[in-house]
Amino acid sequence: MPPRFDFTIHATDGKARLGEIAMRRGTIRTPAFMPVGTAATVKAMKPQDVRASGADILLGNTYHLMLRPSAERVHRLGGLHKFMGWDRPILTDSGGYQVMSLSELTKRNEEGVSFKSHLDGTRHMISPERSMEIQRLLGSDIVMAFDELVPTTSTREVRGAAMERSMRWAKRSRDAFDAGGDHAEGAALFGIQQGALDQDLRKESADALLDIGFDGYAVGGLAVGEGQEAMFGVLDFAPGQLDATKPRYLMGVGKPDDIVGAVERGIDMFDCVLPTRSGRTGQAFTRTGPINIRNARFAEDTGPLDPACGCPVCANSSRAYLHHLVRAGEILGAMLMTEHNLYFYQALMADLRAAIGDGTLTRFATAFRADYLARPDS
Amino acid sequence: MPPRFDFTIHATDGKARLGEIAMRRGTIRTPAFMPVGTAATVKAMKPQDVRASGADILLGNTYHLMLRPSAERVHRLGGLHKFMGWDRPILTDSGGYQVMSLSELTKRNEEGVSFKSHLDGTRHMISPERSMEIQRLLGSDIVMAFDELVPTTSTREVRGAAMERSMRWAKRSRDAFDAGGDHAEGAALFGIQQGALDQDLRKESADALLDIGFDGYAVGGLAVGEGQEAMFGVLDFAPGQLDATKPRYLMGVGKPDDIVGAVERGIDMFDCVLPTRSGRTGQAFTRTGPINIRNARFAEDTGPLDPACGCPVCANSSRAYLHHLVRAGEILGAMLMTEHNLYFYQALMADLRAAIGDGTLTRFATAFRADYLARPDS
Repeated sequence: MPPRFDFTIHATDGKARLGEIAMRRGTIRTPAFMPVGTAATVKAMKPQDVRASGADILLGNTYHLMLRPSAERVHRLGGLHKFMGWDRPILTDSGGYQVMSLSELTKRNEEGVSFKSHLDGTRHMISPERSMEIQRLLGSDIVMAFDELVPTTSTREVRGAAMERSMRWAKRSRDAFDAGGDHAEGAALFGIQQGALDQDLRKESADALLDIGFDGYAVGGLAVGEGQEAMFGVLDFAPGQLDATKPRYLMGVGKPDDIVGAVERGIDMFDCVLPTRSGRTGQAFTRTGPINIRNARFAEDTGPLDPACGCPVCANSSRAYLHHLVRAGEILGAMLMTEHNLYFYQALMADLRAAIGDGTLTRFATAFRADYLARPDS
Repeated sequence: MPPRFDFTIHATDGKARLGEIAMRRGTIRTPAFMPVGTAATVKAMKPQDVRASGADILLGNTYHLMLRPSAERVHRLGGLHKFMGWDRPILTDSGGYQVMSLSELTKRNEEGVSFKSHLDGTRHMISPERSMEIQRLLGSDIVMAFDELVPTTSTREVRGAAMERSMRWAKRSRDAFDAGGDHAEGAALFGIQQGALDQDLRKESADALLDIGFDGYAVGGLAVGEGQEAMFGVLDFAPGQLDATKPRYLMGVGKPDDIVGAVERGIDMFDCVLPTRSGRTGQAFTRTGPINIRNARFAEDTGPLDPACGCPVCANSSRAYLHHLVRAGEILGAMLMTEHNLYFYQALMADLRAAIGDGTLTRFATAFRADYLARPDS
């Protein structure tokens, strides 16, 4: 019988860990980057090409999927894996973040959050119990507890109250998950630490989560505009407050240099729309920093997006061709830029894993930053 | 040394011909369907996937490419094949059709056509000589003569005058092509028959073209709104007016049943945006007629787009998933619908070729129409 959720740490380098999460649908190499498949598709990518880029796991969005095509429909069609043609692990978020950032007329109380769909104005509700039900219907492998987010600039009172409510919701998520029967046999549940930038709130949140017990722990409430310095400030202490034997997941992060710094601070898992979203608007990641392929200086540049990249796009397409495609608004431009960016992210994760294994992470990270941050975004 | 342009007819069945065109960049099986790669990309498709669908040759648009990124730039970047990553034959049109249908403030005289770009308002000119130059700069394998189009509903005088001018331009195209040096070593030149729906004008045009001499002959000026009956009426006589030893190309056609009827009437080559354009808007071709995947009845349909189809999309994706993707405006929806449609067209061409080889074309065509036209477009 395949393991439900076995996290093994193979090596450490400073606070960074090289590991693997073994699950029934496949093994996730950590530190891991999870491409975002918002609406049952990693935008502009076929599933086999996402896999070929090196991804072991995708993220699906509860909020988007519950609205369209609906969790119940996905369930009737055999679950999210079958629906979208991805047979490896899928992590689903709880809907908590998107319901606050995308929906309208949101009403929150202790029960949960009710809101109007940004698609068609219909009213919906998410509570911890409903979030667990949706993620169960989708067939998620890694289920996230439902939490409440507030801006890091909220008053201390608001920050504390949101963290405390999130911990009550974490317990309700745990209970609903455990009551879910068949789901609990194969899936894992992660708790989410809140507490904004406050070390004491973060500690209180971590202790509450550890008391409940989860398969993994996310550092939530970051990457919401606080800036890299403030985020790293939290990451200097937050991972250490969590269970060292479980994976630590930094939600919604981030830029390549964010990821390198977070891995150095002990984070094992990441997700972000940046490689896919920026690919669609013409931004390509390279080891010497991001470039905007729309820039006129690329119009007759016969070189690849990134001379240091081994992806199929860099092997076959010139900057001049991609410049043309993106400027002309061609779908193939979005496809190829996205594919390159996903390879870039996965190659970075592979290099980080290799450096941790070799005990050379500090050297790698220093050299990476020297190259990547050497010049402003062109 | 590979052949420049060798057309071999392997079998005939009624007026239909099974053949091959051998060129330096590859062999084109006929009857052939050429996907349209307007702006140096078959929209939403990677070149390798276009090839995997069974395409031996692509069409590129002179009008679009001369405006963006410009023929001169494509030439400096090594030609269209290298630029877009397609190493097999490419046919380029002359720009004559698009300049009339897409550009603004068009002025025609005996020299050529001057026009304002639909992209940025800049003024440009195409003459027979400039069209040959552009197609040479692009590195086209099959170059089309520059012609003048008028609606089939024009007066007899206008129809006749446009045909006669097109024949003078055909001669200038031939002379400019032959003067082109290196280009003439590897590329072929096709003449375009005009004459609207008039059998005598078509005969006069054919005789003028045969007098000049071309590697192949296109039936031009059709598929411009005259309807299938009128088009087939012309195809009942027009192919027979041309050189039986050369390929006959019906430009801009068409619907699957148009193609079947045209093959029965002796046409060897086709191009059309229909499979790609309609794929992007949610229409899928099936052997029992086109379907619109946005239709609510497909929302929970777990079957493939077309049970009779062997394409990768039908193997991996349900109608329900494609319904979701197209409704959500996802790029992957456009990608997969386009891929299926291109496979559908190439499978139809393969079946037509097999039927001609077996001497069973009438039976195949009758059965195809019975299935395909049995019900109105859903």
